[in-house]
Amino acid sequence: MTETAIDATMASVPQPRRSRRHRVVIVGGGFGGLAAAKALRDDPVDVTLIDRRNHHLFQPLLYQVATAGLNPADIATPIRSSLRKCANVSVRLGEVVRIDDRAVVLADGTQIEFDHLVVATGVRHSYFGHDDWEQLAPGLKSIEDALEIRRRVLLAFEIAERTDDPTERDEHLNFVVVGGGPTGVELAGAIAEIATRAMSRDFRSIDPSSARVILVEGADRVLGAYTPDLAESARRQLERLGVEVRLDTLVDGIDERGVDTNNGRIDARTVLWSAGVQASPLGAATGAELDRAGRVVVDEALAVPGRPNVFVIGDLAHARWGGEQVPGVAQGAIQGGTHAAACIRADLAGRARPVFRYTNKGELATIGRSSAVGVIGKVKLRGWLAWMAWWMIHILFLINFRSRLVVLFSWAWSYVTFQRGSRLITSAWRPGTDRASGTSEPSR
Amino acid sequence: MTETAIDATMASVPQPRRSRRHRVVIVGGGFGGLAAAKALRDDPVDVTLIDRRNHHLFQPLLYQVATAGLNPADIATPIRSSLRKCANVSVRLGEVVRIDDRAVVLADGTQIEFDHLVVATGVRHSYFGHDDWEQLAPGLKSIEDALEIRRRVLLAFEIAERTDDPTERDEHLNFVVVGGGPTGVELAGAIAEIATRAMSRDFRSIDPSSARVILVEGADRVLGAYTPDLAESARRQLERLGVEVRLDTLVDGIDERGVDTNNGRIDARTVLWSAGVQASPLGAATGAELDRAGRVVVDEALAVPGRPNVFVIGDLAHARWGGEQVPGVAQGAIQGGTHAAACIRADLAGRARPVFRYTNKGELATIGRSSAVGVIGKVKLRGWLAWMAWWMIHILFLINFRSRLVVLFSWAWSYVTFQRGSRLITSAWRPGTDRASGTSEPSR
Repeated sequence: MTETAIDATMASVPQPRRSRRHRVVIVGGGFGGLAAAKALRDDPVDVTLIDRRNHHLFQPLLYQVATAGLNPADIATPIRSSLRKCANVSVRLGEVVRIDDRAVVLADGTQIEFDHLVVATGVRHSYFGHDDWEQLAPGLKSIEDALEIRRRVLLAFEIAERTDDPTERDEHLNFVVVGGGPTGVELAGAIAEIATRAMSRDFRSIDPSSARVILVEGADRVLGAYTPDLAESARRQLERLGVEVRLDTLVDGIDERGVDTNNGRIDARTVLWSAGVQASPLGAATGAELDRAGRVVVDEALAVPGRPNVFVIGDLAHARWGGEQVPGVAQGAIQGGTHAAACIRADLAGRARPVFRYTNKGELATIGRSSAVGVIGKVKLRGWLAWMAWWMIHILFLINFRSRLVVLFSWAWSYVTFQRGSRLITSAWRPGTDRASGTSEPSR
Repeated sequence: MTETAIDATMASVPQPRRSRRHRVVIVGGGFGGLAAAKALRDDPVDVTLIDRRNHHLFQPLLYQVATAGLNPADIATPIRSSLRKCANVSVRLGEVVRIDDRAVVLADGTQIEFDHLVVATGVRHSYFGHDDWEQLAPGLKSIEDALEIRRRVLLAFEIAERTDDPTERDEHLNFVVVGGGPTGVELAGAIAEIATRAMSRDFRSIDPSSARVILVEGADRVLGAYTPDLAESARRQLERLGVEVRLDTLVDGIDERGVDTNNGRIDARTVLWSAGVQASPLGAATGAELDRAGRVVVDEALAVPGRPNVFVIGDLAHARWGGEQVPGVAQGAIQGGTHAAACIRADLAGRARPVFRYTNKGELATIGRSSAVGVIGKVKLRGWLAWMAWWMIHILFLINFRSRLVVLFSWAWSYVTFQRGSRLITSAWRPGTDRASGTSEPSR
């Protein structure tokens, strides 16, 4: 297999002509795309990185923005700044809608030619065909998502405060999080913490700590990717934070006043979605075979079978190593990006491509104040220790130094004061917002 | 006059009945409203503070959010948190649309009764009847405005970077700020600084420092509120920062590609508005006499003539002291709020109301890096010294301690590194934003 892969490579990858430099196009400025661009920094190639956003988002801390713990800018840096030192990389704001044989096509029709292409556009949330649920139960993938969730959560308490009808008040103080994966667990834990701590003394007619946070999971445990004992520990830690965990519970319907499940109705005005992801539509545009979640099944060099000059990395790739699928986590994407760069280098030198090896440095999932679970090497961590490790690692990996300081500060601050720094309800700008009551009702 | 005022007061202000506590309603959570609420903290009254927003906004630093220097949350705090220690104050999110004899009416129809009312809803920008300009040239009053301006300014560089047509590129690199008051001067100075410093090394096909920032002012000098020599110094400092100052220039028209003035056309894709303000519509709802800008002409106790239990304070009030109109600045609003509280206290005690005295502690206007002008006491300040003073004072006045630290840090950081911490282009949330190219074109 390796042999044939190499043959295919040598056959169809054009050798660089002296006339112009070899062109590498990278689509997506996430962990994978940035890693690939940086790895090519000193190679004789012209790199163009294309992203719909001007910023790289540090996804693992996004839930903190959604729960008023951090500012958007604390976890997002302009892609340009991150790549400033890479003189051979130019950054382009735009959305790729098509992949041709030797060029990508942007939404505005522009063609950008490539000799090698690296696709790293990740995944977005999936509503399993119920796209109408998105309006009722936003997911958490972008800064906009996070700000919308923050708006809805904070607004719920405001509305409850001014409502006289007790039933309605309770509905506004009920929060349902659908999906018990890492994001769902983080959201549920953080909302429970806001209610019981950050806002407890701020209201007069309601007691925020009477809010209910219900985490709904279809499987028989949360954090399915972890071992049963860690998952069980996570459930206990969630309940200690005041989260009601409902396992083996599937959502049949969502409306503006609650959720219908196989275990009955849950009344709640705020429903958040973290139940599933599907690959970015650009995966299909590679013409490759897709797995059930729409991920691109790549070869052992992370290239598209039959298109050796097109790599797919990160969450969008279905890559296998040691018989297992490489998990859709930051370290997988970063390793994939570096690997794709190594393969491009090999092609240019006429060497054989290396085979992708995934190194799992460990996994940690945070749950809330002093609560987390995880594995580092062979060591299982729980509670405060896991939580400490989680923060240390994530702050270390935060891309720019300034953010590291700010996040460390914000985090230490709320740890000491129980307060949250970003409790802002803002809405979409439109002329006259300053006199509209745009922020006084949820946009539904 | 004082005498009659007092008689009127005694006649129509109901003495507190034992049955219930005296009810004070404050509309607006700005500097004036907060000051009034805090001043009433230990009085035997029930205070309800109503605002459309959940947060108090530290207006003087808003231009820093608009120019990517600060995060929204750095300059905004939840009104609830600021008033947490005031047990007799309850905060209510809502928009007052009508003022009846003894009650205010919210947009949702709710009535909230008062014995004393304090109206402090401030001003918003005025387009002198050209409301269609607002879409083309946003003003700077709210967090939403600031984020929209930030989005347009940062996007302009992104679009210029990917444009091949040189004319169009230049249009995108031209920024027009209409109005040479404090806000206009701050915006123009900050944009020039971003272009020449923060982004200079981030682009490949454009040179951000080739951007032009044009400040258009109708009068014969900027900062009309200051003495001619300080205004002249401000103009020189602006030009040193690279801003083109066009005085005696009136805007006749604005379209998507530029501005028409009595001194000719200026091509620019980004136009910002800080040319004028008009009072919040709630001023008219008091039924009082209004001045040309729609401000409520109040008596020497800051009450509405003929409605002694209704006070108007802050930017919304046209108050006079020592033959001069009290300027629409934070210190005027704060002093007004404290004064209104003192009058309410006097009414309850059956004492005569104090007369409002405005104490001007000095004025400072910042222009940009190491550039500012101002007067403290009798001392005129220019340049670095004025700028230092400006920052010290504003950080001192920033409402909560956490923000003080963060702002001080962000500021010191960008002073040392020339970088800006919040260079995010985000757009309004809507389902599917994560796959829409919502951020790749200005919303026009």
